Amino acid sequence: MTERTDGDRTGPTGWTLHPDRVFPAEATTREFARTIYAETRELPLVSMHGHVDAGVLAADAPFGNPAEVFVVPDHYLVRMLIAQGVAPDALGLPRLDGAATSAPDPREVWRTLCSHWHVFRGTPTRYWLEHALVTELGVSAPPSAQTADLLYDEISGRLATDAYRPLALVERFRLELLATTDAATATLDDHAALAAKGWGGRIVPTFRPDDLLHVDHPAWRADLDLLAERSGIAVDSYRRFVEALEQRRAAFVAAGARATDHGHRSADTTPMSEAEAGRVFDAALRRQATQAEATAFAAHMLFEMARMSTQDGLTMQLHPGVLRSHSSRVAATYGPDIGYDIPVAAEFTRALRPLLDAFGHHPRLRLVVFTVD
Amino acid sequence: MTERTDGDRTGPTGWTLHPDRVFPAEATTREFARTIYAETRELPLVSMHGHVDAGVLAADAPFGNPAEVFVVPDHYLVRMLIAQGVAPDALGLPRLDGAATSAPDPREVWRTLCSHWHVFRGTPTRYWLEHALVTELGVSAPPSAQTADLLYDEISGRLATDAYRPLALVERFRLELLATTDAATATLDDHAALAAKGWGGRIVPTFRPDDLLHVDHPAWRADLDLLAERSGIAVDSYRRFVEALEQRRAAFVAAGARATDHGHRSADTTPMSEAEAGRVFDAALRRQATQAEATAFAAHMLFEMARMSTQDGLTMQLHPGVLRSHSSRVAATYGPDIGYDIPVAAEFTRALRPLLDAFGHHPRLRLVVFTVD
Amino acid sequence: MTERTDGDRTGPTGWTLHPDRVFPAEATTREFARTIYAETRELPLVSMHGHVDAGVLAADAPFGNPAEVFVVPDHYLVRMLIAQGVAPDALGLPRLDGAATSAPDPREVWRTLCSHWHVFRGTPTRYWLEHALVTELGVSAPPSAQTADLLYDEISGRLATDAYRPLALVERFRLELLATTDAATATLDDHAALAAKGWGGRIVPTFRPDDLLHVDHPAWRADLDLLAERSGIAVDSYRRFVEALEQRRAAFVAAGARATDHGHRSADTTPMSEAEAGRVFDAALRRQATQAEATAFAAHMLFEMARMSTQDGLTMQLHPGVLRSHSSRVAATYGPDIGYDIPVAAEFTRALRPLLDAFGHHPRLRLVVFTVD
Repeated sequence: MTERTDGDRTGPTGWTLHPDRVFPAEATTREFARTIYAETRELPLVSMHGHVDAGVLAADAPFGNPAEVFVVPDHYLVRMLIAQGVAPDALGLPRLDGAATSAPDPREVWRTLCSHWHVFRGTPTRYWLEHALVTELGVSAPPSAQTADLLYDEISGRLATDAYRPLALVERFRLELLATTDAATATLDDHAALAAKGWGGRIVPTFRPDDLLHVDHPAWRADLDLLAERSGIAVDSYRRFVEALEQRRAAFVAAGARATDHGHRSADTTPMSEAEAGRVFDAALRRQATQAEATAFAAHMLFEMARMSTQDGLTMQLHPGVLRSHSSRVAATYGPDIGYDIPVAAEFTRALRPLLDAFGHHPRLRLVVFTVD
Repeated sequence: MTERTDGDRTGPTGWTLHPDRVFPAEATTREFARTIYAETRELPLVSMHGHVDAGVLAADAPFGNPAEVFVVPDHYLVRMLIAQGVAPDALGLPRLDGAATSAPDPREVWRTLCSHWHVFRGTPTRYWLEHALVTELGVSAPPSAQTADLLYDEISGRLATDAYRPLALVERFRLELLATTDAATATLDDHAALAAKGWGGRIVPTFRPDDLLHVDHPAWRADLDLLAERSGIAVDSYRRFVEALEQRRAAFVAAGARATDHGHRSADTTPMSEAEAGRVFDAALRRQATQAEATAFAAHMLFEMARMSTQDGLTMQLHPGVLRSHSSRVAATYGPDIGYDIPVAAEFTRALRPLLDAFGHHPRLRLVVFTVD
Repeated sequence: MTERTDGDRTGPTGWTLHPDRVFPAEATTREFARTIYAETRELPLVSMHGHVDAGVLAADAPFGNPAEVFVVPDHYLVRMLIAQGVAPDALGLPRLDGAATSAPDPREVWRTLCSHWHVFRGTPTRYWLEHALVTELGVSAPPSAQTADLLYDEISGRLATDAYRPLALVERFRLELLATTDAATATLDDHAALAAKGWGGRIVPTFRPDDLLHVDHPAWRADLDLLAERSGIAVDSYRRFVEALEQRRAAFVAAGARATDHGHRSADTTPMSEAEAGRVFDAALRRQATQAEATAFAAHMLFEMARMSTQDGLTMQLHPGVLRSHSSRVAATYGPDIGYDIPVAAEFTRALRPLLDAFGHHPRLRLVVFTVD
């Protein structure tokens, strides 16, 4: 057993985690699980699909208070608290319009989490928070209304030390490779800065072009302008749009990217003819593309992404089947991706057939498909 | 161990049930299950969704013979027997047309069940019948062709005693609250009678308006007339239809109701404009609503039910995903709900979005959604 | 324990299989599994749905080399190897156009399987191959690049002996009844030959009319000609098409058939009027049936098959939900059914309703529905 062993670190008042807590209850299979874990736990980690902000890593500043770290950015956690009647404003969620809500004291936000700790029983959120609090931060008691302040101070104290700065944690967690997720229009400046500090190749970007591939996305036109700016290509036609995407992928590859990441509602990959794709693109430029055209264009662009992957070698990651911004009001007030992404059934067999038919036997295609269940 | 302990009651020939019969076979989790059950088994029961007939409780007459109690009204059991080739008439199912089928001797019906006992192996039907027979009725042997008459006499004897009258069973089962399910057009006289006997608040009605919300239901026009009669509102327009429903909900609330209950084929809750809803309602009055309009209207009315729930506080229960009356011939001969309700896949994420978008954050909305699997 | 006990047969170097390998790991349920298996393992087998070629049984010639027996005809295995980058030609798959590919040495094909043995970990393919290799063939070591030649020789040696001829294996496996699967247009000569040798009644045909029921099948017209030839009925109208199918079913029944087998993409059984079915059939004869008409006709013909089953007593087997020939290129080069059949979601409740409504209570209908998961 090493210093990193879960469960053998005991805080002042003795909060420990059961070392078998994610293993089967049944004795025979639990023993197998222990054996496998003992043989693999010391291996380095490769995180090919993460959502760490490259800017946080590049700045490498100490993390802020516990509310900033564990509450505000965790949309699973936020959603659970809202479902219990907590107001989003009370959790410090920033409003899109920047309205001067009296930003709550982060200590109050943290108290709200701690006093609702029981509602997380049996959730993955609780599992990973417990791991972070006990194994990584060594706090002295489980969260509750009574312990909230104590924990707030303990965590703040640790986060202020150098051992808990972002890059120190990359070492601490033995991350051999960490792939961030970056908009197709990202400057990649943070990755350049990281590379200049010697982290290139270990912290790499991932190409995520979702907004650009969905002509019905509210930000599409703005992103298109950004795409033109980043790529230096005037994106005034479908053909130049494709060129600009290829140019950005090349820039990502140059920055060490290994993969692309695609969050489409459907896994459909039916291609269009170039003429038809051009027609829809032009209509979208005039804000005249129909919903059906936008949906078909997104499917076509997945096909195109696969084609590009066979050329530049980026592994393609696809996770369809999520209906985003389920609550219109929350999306309108606080923006997308704050906890209202709900799974929907996704069809794969027919949807992926065009892509697989065209590229499935290509030696360079690497396609990872996720299901959300 | 108390007198109610399953499995420690032994009849003359010693039929007992294993006390762990619904617990995991595996030792570790079985021990957890035993601990949890020991801690909770003495708690009173709250039955928020039942199908007990309020008239049976109000009359509080002794139950009839075993066939009347355990065979005829149990559509799961009836369906299984029909699947084995037993004719519905032989089970004493009443025909819709009241045709003078020679009603079978209830003892013969009971014998038919007992001689088919083996086909229920591994079914919930057998599990709950075994519980009733052994734990509640203390019969002396498992059902079989050989024991059918013995059991018939044993059960009949017990059902004839006061200890097995309906209200005595409510006490025996420690029912703290029993919610019956009642048509939106029910007089609620039985509940009034129960309240007069001091059972108000413990036995309460539940508001089920399915037939009224489906303008394509064969009984819709007749139910609409009943709705007018009960509510005292001439239901000649959509607006007055809504008023009449609100009036009935208020009457249910006054009678102690806590909830509504909705068995729709789809969970769709897309609202219509009031003008459009009015147009479809008027078309339905003229028997000219299309199937698509009827389906859309049912979805709209679910949305309306949620709106009313935010006003009157009734918990909304929704169980979509059942195709009723799967056998046209059986439905035509014996009526709906006699065992030909088959699950179909139901979509929830998109379907419930309009309702949740409008009322999901309302502090008074309580929505329970069931899946049928 | 008898000579056939899995796991107690040890080859020269001692490759054995764990006798509990398909039982639960957990001790309580494993003990139940052992008891049930001990009580049932000596019972004879009835194989009502198989894909053994009747010609192989009729010829009763020794099987060929290990590649011919275990690789080329096993489309699960072939697909897994292709997914690893192995070329179909390298596995000896015959091309549709008969192009003179230099057929690979079967020993090389076998080596390819053995050197990829690790990729089959956890698959049913590996499970049943291990059973065949250890329990039935008694080879001396697990497959690997190093043991490939040894195993090739061991297996070839055994297959060359009389004990491993097809009919000897029917005895060895204690097959009480073996149903082959045969096109509706099969001559049934092989079954006649088997009957003449005394195997009639034990080896029986199964009627599979898929190609004939799908007017959009590439081989439909050719099969229709074969149907006319076999039945002696000029199939120039829908009515005579139905007659010819009934005639073939009668021929199958005469040859001992017990069942039909239907691999449709959908379970839809919605019938057409005879006039409409005739119209579509005539359009198909002129190659003018639309895709929608072809799909509806296939559904109608499933309904017809059920009707015929109530008359001739053949058990109807239906396994919908497979999208065949997923890879267009592989299908075009090597033909259908070589490992690109991918499951798709299938609806049953609504789809089977017309069939069950019409024939579900018929005393002669026996319908087996498979799900593919």
